[in-house]
Amino acid sequence: MSETEPGGPKVVTAAVIVIGNELLSGRTRDKNLHYLAGRLTELGVRLQEARVIPDVEDVIVATVNQLRARFDYVFTSGGIGPTHDDITADAIAKAFGVGIDYHPEALKILGAQYQPGEFNQARKRMARIPLGGVLVANPVSRAPGFRLENVYVFAGVPAILRAMFEGIRHELVGGTPVMSRTISSAVPEGRMARGLEDLQGRYAEVEMGSYPYYRMGAFGTSIVLRSVDRDQLDAAARDLKQLIRDLGQEPVEGEAA
Amino acid sequence: MSETEPGGPKVVTAAVIVIGNELLSGRTRDKNLHYLAGRLTELGVRLQEARVIPDVEDVIVATVNQLRARFDYVFTSGGIGPTHDDITADAIAKAFGVGIDYHPEALKILGAQYQPGEFNQARKRMARIPLGGVLVANPVSRAPGFRLENVYVFAGVPAILRAMFEGIRHELVGGTPVMSRTISSAVPEGRMARGLEDLQGRYAEVEMGSYPYYRMGAFGTSIVLRSVDRDQLDAAARDLKQLIRDLGQEPVEGEAA
Repeated sequence: MSETEPGGPKVVTAAVIVIGNELLSGRTRDKNLHYLAGRLTELGVRLQEARVIPDVEDVIVATVNQLRARFDYVFTSGGIGPTHDDITADAIAKAFGVGIDYHPEALKILGAQYQPGEFNQARKRMARIPLGGVLVANPVSRAPGFRLENVYVFAGVPAILRAMFEGIRHELVGGTPVMSRTISSAVPEGRMARGLEDLQGRYAEVEMGSYPYYRMGAFGTSIVLRSVDRDQLDAAARDLKQLIRDLGQEPVEGEAA
Repeated sequence: MSETEPGGPKVVTAAVIVIGNELLSGRTRDKNLHYLAGRLTELGVRLQEARVIPDVEDVIVATVNQLRARFDYVFTSGGIGPTHDDITADAIAKAFGVGIDYHPEALKILGAQYQPGEFNQARKRMARIPLGGVLVANPVSRAPGFRLENVYVFAGVPAILRAMFEGIRHELVGGTPVMSRTISSAVPEGRMARGLEDLQGRYAEVEMGSYPYYRMGAFGTSIVLRSVDRDQLDAAARDLKQLIRDLGQEPVEGEAA
């Protein structure tokens, strides 16, 4: 959960749970994690862990209960459609130890989009929401997601997940934003490692990640500096550029072209 | 771990741990999970869970120890380069409660590719392997991965991870292969759900997943049937096609074009 030291940065954390056998069999490539990671970072919410799990009730229940206790926000994707393999809503109810029932507003939203006689039992199933759940709007295909305490339950279809997230993001209370700068150069990782470690030693408040690249026939390294402290970030970037120049190369702000 | 009933299918399981802050900040999009998922499925190994975690020692140790006890194989990606943020090898040693030291063969492999004077301390760091670790060849950039008991430790760069996996896949002992058939049609999920649930009730040995799609302006559903029993799989596919025809549409084998 949030750890806030007096005078220190406010840290708000999150986890993502991607639910679906199709992701573990290799049928489908997940697109939601990368989207949520980027958006949460922008909002000052630190994504600390993501899990991809199958459509198995016990696994969903255990995973949700572990992660909702550890992080400020949990976002799930997948398993809220009309078919028998859509078991996320029931699993969430079980995780929270609450019942599940047709939600009047969800029934109304769903009912409005079908012709008479077409709003069958399977489609009504999408209106089953754990008791206490607050609906999350789905402007794409109507069937809503929901929030229960700190757990947001979204659809797995990327366009729907994105629309759902955009609809609730004003509710999220972010922490102190983490700012980042990326400095790239043709210095190989192995030549820069020692100087970079010294730099990390001098700037404890700046997280430094080193990412080798090979592009257009050229090797090089992008260093990502991340910090909640703008002054420390800028000072570290200045020293890093000097380190690169001392190694005989020219630093470039941003990812390598 | 493996659950093998007498006369039943042999089940071999795996988990993937993707390690790297850059995946959780949204800087980088993971490409390794989808690859490993597909390859493991082909080999008859069932990927049961994947986790994306940060470059934090305690988190890596706890995650590796949880998953190596629960699954037959664990594959990690990321964090075995030369810089200070590459902490996977040390974390694996800690997870297993073993020491870590320069591996003579790894030193030889790495030393051979640098000019005199260029094989510095940081580069030598990539030869540090937990005691008891067996090297995994890296035909791309030489710095090896390793295996310790049932845990394979690979690089995070996708081209390297793939080469490492291809080099060790003959070591993996797969279970009874899970076969699959995909049947698509223009029947919406919500219209097929009830018949599909009945079908699932009749074919307990066939896992049925329902995936709505929207392509080229047309809605429809792909049903994925998966089973270790070819006869059951084919019978379920036959009945599913009949269900689709009864709903007034033509079934298509495979994903919707």
